[in-house]
Formats: sequence, structure tokens, C-alpha cells
Amino acid sequence: MVVGLVETAVPTAKSTVSSAVKKPTSLSSDPIINVARGDPTIYEPYWKKMGDRCKVVIAGDEFMSYFCNAMNLCWFLLPELDNAIRTLHRVVGNAMVDDDRFIIVGNGSTQLFHALLYALSSPDLPDPINVVAAAPFYSSYPEETKFLRSKLYKWAGDANCYDKDEPYIEVVTSPNNPDGSIRGTVVNREGGKAIHDLAYYWPQYAPITSKADHDVMLFTFSKATGHAGTRIGWAIVKDKVIAAKMVKFIEVSSIGVSREAQLRAAKILGVIADDCRNLDLKGENFFEYGRRLMSKRWGKLRELGMKSNGVFSLPKYPRDYCKFTGEYTDSNPAFAWLKSNEVLNCENLLRDESKIITRGGSSFGVDSTYTRVSMLSRDVEFELLLERLAAIKGTVNGN
Amino acid sequence: MVVGLVETAVPTAKSTVSSAVKKPTSLSSDPIINVARGDPTIYEPYWKKMGDRCKVVIAGDEFMSYFCNAMNLCWFLLPELDNAIRTLHRVVGNAMVDDDRFIIVGNGSTQLFHALLYALSSPDLPDPINVVAAAPFYSSYPEETKFLRSKLYKWAGDANCYDKDEPYIEVVTSPNNPDGSIRGTVVNREGGKAIHDLAYYWPQYAPITSKADHDVMLFTFSKATGHAGTRIGWAIVKDKVIAAKMVKFIEVSSIGVSREAQLRAAKILGVIADDCRNLDLKGENFFEYGRRLMSKRWGKLRELGMKSNGVFSLPKYPRDYCKFTGEYTDSNPAFAWLKSNEVLNCENLLRDESKIITRGGSSFGVDSTYTRVSMLSRDVEFELLLERLAAIKGTVNGN
Repeated sequence: MVVGLVETAVPTAKSTVSSAVKKPTSLSSDPIINVARGDPTIYEPYWKKMGDRCKVVIAGDEFMSYFCNAMNLCWFLLPELDNAIRTLHRVVGNAMVDDDRFIIVGNGSTQLFHALLYALSSPDLPDPINVVAAAPFYSSYPEETKFLRSKLYKWAGDANCYDKDEPYIEVVTSPNNPDGSIRGTVVNREGGKAIHDLAYYWPQYAPITSKADHDVMLFTFSKATGHAGTRIGWAIVKDKVIAAKMVKFIEVSSIGVSREAQLRAAKILGVIADDCRNLDLKGENFFEYGRRLMSKRWGKLRELGMKSNGVFSLPKYPRDYCKFTGEYTDSNPAFAWLKSNEVLNCENLLRDESKIITRGGSSFGVDSTYTRVSMLSRDVEFELLLERLAAIKGTVNGN
Repeated sequence: MVVGLVETAVPTAKSTVSSAVKKPTSLSSDPIINVARGDPTIYEPYWKKMGDRCKVVIAGDEFMSYFCNAMNLCWFLLPELDNAIRTLHRVVGNAMVDDDRFIIVGNGSTQLFHALLYALSSPDLPDPINVVAAAPFYSSYPEETKFLRSKLYKWAGDANCYDKDEPYIEVVTSPNNPDGSIRGTVVNREGGKAIHDLAYYWPQYAPITSKADHDVMLFTFSKATGHAGTRIGWAIVKDKVIAAKMVKFIEVSSIGVSREAQLRAAKILGVIADDCRNLDLKGENFFEYGRRLMSKRWGKLRELGMKSNGVFSLPKYPRDYCKFTGEYTDSNPAFAWLKSNEVLNCENLLRDESKIITRGGSSFGVDSTYTRVSMLSRDVEFELLLERLAAIKGTVNGN
């Protein structure tokens, strides 16, 4: 089984996007399109345009110590990043960041998810704590919870079916990955703990209806701005004991987080916050740009859906008032949650008929008529994706 | 117990060095000196002197993708870093880096140690694999092995006492942390696996007697050059299946490693390698500089030891021929492994009498007459350390 894990890791990790980018102009060149992973390269042109404003320069003698701020509970958090994170959340209005909450930085929000499993579990309990999420759930949660076979916590599946009278942690992703829905906890039993993963709660993906105010909230630089290679995530945590246990986890796992990465995240988040506050800005702030781009892509995809006469379905999202933009806006999720109305395995259909690699429903705890398609690829690849999807109708219907 | 872990984490993490650096001139100011952790700030002046040669500049649109090199097994490894690592090892001659070995980058060698526990264990075995190291061993190995209570591996203590007829992994640190000794495996039973942690196998710490040629070898940027805040480590791995499992671990733990950190490590390792090959270099290459500095510090410490009339002992190291420098050289370890000849608890003595925070022998699996003292602090702090140590004789002997 482990060898299986290893062998499947490489194909999912390897992207063949590069060939798609080089020769994307027609179907005849037949490159594979890999939209299984949400690699957020969509935003590259924006950051290219920003030129020197987002540039960071690091001298050879900077950042040598393990310690960023020895007086802070999270001693490896760069004070500039702490400040930039709080400022941006205040500007966007998507999360409470009162001064008495702790910001914990991680090597991506993935490491912080592990840190939270550790922080919310207890070696004093006789059995591992149950970890649940309502299906469809983010495909990595089960593996992340299971792979080290910890006696502290264990994966217990779909939160909708959870009926044990035992301690549990419910992971709530909102907007949800894969299906973009706005979510709350579903188990709601006394003593239950929750992790709120708000990776996609930014104006380009969903209306910002209120400041999120949960005990533990996760965010990631990858999905906020598109800088996935930087590997920066952060948690906003109310309770000091939980925050301290997370810091301990990150200390024992990796003795902190790259200061170069933190400096860059601080710079870029700071520039975004400045632009959002600057009403005289020439051009768009990042979130307006992102929202326009995502909205345009979703428009094209939905148009295709209507033309396809029911080969595929897409979820519908309610419009809501976005306090950030000050208008009613649509959800434009980072992933399209495609349902095939004609075949049982949507992932296989796309792969076999169109060389489109997606991630099928079974990875997300639901049936294989569903598959997840990244909406965050580069323009040229997204256009090719549309072209391929449009052609499927003919293939399936034989016309 | 977990609360205890949390509460002790903060004091060990917090360094009060800053106060020591500001007012270090006399004992009367009485700041705490924290040399419990090996924070390698000793090298800062060298890198300051290097100025623009080691500067990195990163534009806003660089490094957005998760993928560094989709064609490589380690898909998150920056090709420039791969190249710089191999080049430097070839120049220094401290490790075999044939083209068919895999370089795996991690968030510090700490993450790679975890990755190796995962890669060398198996969910198919009925019991967790035993992890051992010969005492005195690096104080973090037990905690790193135990803290998630994995069913894959378990800490089994001092390798010298290991007598079970069960699968095991032996961790070998050479030169050893804490005591600087040159080591090999001690269990040597058929089917045994080994992790060779060579963090300190660089010319400033020990003579380079041969190219290390083990199945898995760990190195870290922190101890090689002093850039601890960058959090870059690397493993050199012979076996493809092991390497692939490590990549899988790092994917599931943190989806790779910051590309900013990798770029900076590549730049700095590249400059060192260039300087080592450049015989016309004005001034010293990094390793010569480091060796001179460490040798000077050890000279001062040993001189103090002789004056102290046997209050403390220090280990003795054999001279050996260093192929890198082309001469017989001494070992100048990153830590002084101090043994008190007069009291039972050396850590407490230093803390209570001299406000010197060190890490006591019990953390390393031996008795409390020993304590570990970092030799890698800033100059001003090292001088203060010597001053304090010199004063202890009087305190203990009452004169």
C-alpha cells in the first residue's frame, strides 16, 4: 500500500502543463491538461505588472538566527508578516484579528492543519480523537490525518454520518473545496472542536458577508494571492494553550518557517492592503482584478454548460452582499465541481476522451459522477480546457 | 504532560541573547546568556563582509507555482539548489554525490529526519520500528520520534544498550551532537537501517577525512553556513523508493519547501563553492574563515579549562589529515560538551551560579554531570561566556 502511495504521488505531483503551455493552440497537438491540482498560476500576469513594487532584496547576512521575535509566543513569526496579515484582514473584513488573537505561521496551511490535529488532540485520552469533515471534503484531509498512523487522532470520515459519542474534530472548509459551498459545522455536539479552513474566503472567490470569528481559522498565501511556491500559511487562534501547542508542533517538525518566505509574503500582502485602501489607485486592486478574472472564467464555463445540453452540471451559488466590494456579487470558486449526467465516472471520461486530468469524486468522499477541475490555471491552458470540454458533447453523444 | 511540553517550549525557544548583546561588558549587568541552542550567529560578520555577492532579488511574479521541476522525482527542489549542493560537496569532498543519488530538500534537516522515519518504516510491520542512537545523542531525536505517537516507529533509546531482535533504525550523528566525536553505527545487525546525520561534517568543525558514502545522509544549511532562519536541509539518498517516500512525506506535510529559501541557499552555497575553487581569492574562503574562528574559540576555552584546575573537563579529539585543507587539523565542534568534576548537575551549576543557560546531559541520554554549550554565538556573547566560566572556579571552590 505504501508503494502505491509513493507511485501515485509522482503522477499527481508531476504537471504536464508546461507542454500544454508551449503548444496549446489546437486539439490536434493533444497535450495533456493537468487541472487536478489547484496550482494558482492564474494571477501571474497581475504580479508581473506590479514590477518593482513587490520585489524583495535579501542580503547575505540577513535572517541568520532561528529566532524572529523571541518575545512573541510564535517566536519564528516575522513581525512584519504578523502586521501585514492583521492589516489585510482588517482591510478585507474577512476575519476577526483582535490583538489578543494569536497569529501562527506555517509552511503552508498544510503544516498548520497537522499542527492543529496535534494541538486539539490529547495524549491523555484513551483513544485517538475522531477527525471528520462533511463530504465532499478536501481530498487531502484523510491522507494528512492517516499517513503517520498517530495514536492521537484518526480519520472518521463524512461528518454528515458521524454518530459516535466520542471526542471529535470537525474540519469545515468554507467556501468549500471542492464544491465552493458556504459551510458551517454539521455535527454540533457539545465538546466538539472545529478547524475552520478559510483558504478561499477572499473577495475573488466569494462575497465577504461577515468577519469570520471562529476559534481557529486557517488561511494560505497560495490561494489568497497565488504564491503557492512560497509555502506560507497562517492560523488565527483565540486560545493561548492551543496556539502554544501549534508553535511546539512547528518547532518539533521544522524548527519554524523560512524567513525569506515570510518576508516576501509580508511585502506582497502589504502591497495588496495598501492598494485596497487607496481609492485613487490607478487600475485595480488585486482582489478586484482576481474577481473580474474568475467571474469571466466562470461565465465562459457556464455558457459551455448551457450549450452542452446536460452532459455536465455545475453547482449554483446564491448571490450575496459583499461588504468588501459594497455590492451583490457571485461566488466564483477556485474549482469547478463538475457532475457528469451521462456516465458513471466523470474523471475517467475527461481523461480518456479529452486528456484532461482532474480529481474524481471518490477522492472527496462522494461518487465518481463528480470530478474537480481547477479554475486557477494559466489563460492559455484554461482556453484549451474549454475547447476540450466543448468537444466532449460530440464524443459522448456520438454527433 | 502536554501542558508541560508547551510551557517548557517557550523558555527554550526564547532567547535572551539580545539583552546580553546590548549590555555585555561586565558581569555586574548580569544578563542571562542562553547557549542552550546552537544558534549559528557566529558567521554573521563573514556574510556581512560578502555584501552584494550573496544578495538575492525576487520579483513579485516569481515562484508562483507549487512545482519547481515537474520532471524530477523531488518535484519541489529548485534545480539551482540541486546543482549548488552537488557542486559544493564535490569541492569540499565530504560526501558522495554521484548523479544517480537523489537530493531531497526539506524545511530544515529536521523535516527530513521525520521524512526518513516515515520512509524507513513500514505500515506492513506488526509493530513500530525501533529508533535508536548511541548516547550521548542529539536531544531532539527522542521527542521528534515520539511526539505524534506514530504506530510506524518508536523511540528505543541508547543504541549501545539495544539488544532486541527486531527491525531498527540507528541514527548516527558524525561529528556527534553534543560531544563532537566521529562515529559509525554501533548496532550493526543484519537488516538494520541507518540515518547518517552529517550536519557538522564541514571543514570548520572537523577534518574532512573521506567522502561519506552512506545510504541516506542529512545535511543542513544552518550548520554549514550559519543560515538557520532559512530552514533548508537536504538529504542525499541512494535508493529511489526511499527517496520517493521522503518526497511523499514532504508533500503531505507541507507540499514542498519555500522556493525563496531554496534560491537563497543556492546562491550562498554557490558563492562558497566558487571561492573554494578560486585559488587567487583575496581573503579567505568561508570554511577557512570558519575554521580559524572556531579554532580560536576552542583555544580560549581549553586555556580556561587548564586554568580551572579541574572544575570542568572537555573531550579531547584526535588530529587528522583533512583532505580539504591539505593539512592535519583539529576538531572544533559546534558545541562544547562540558563535564563538571565537582558537582552532580552541571546545567544547574551554570544556571544558578552564572546565569548561563545550557542543555544538560539528561536531555542527551547521559548523566547530569554533563552539559552542552553552544560555541556558535556572537563574539560578544562568547567572550562573556568565557568571563563567566572563568569566575565559576572561585564560586565553587569558595575562593
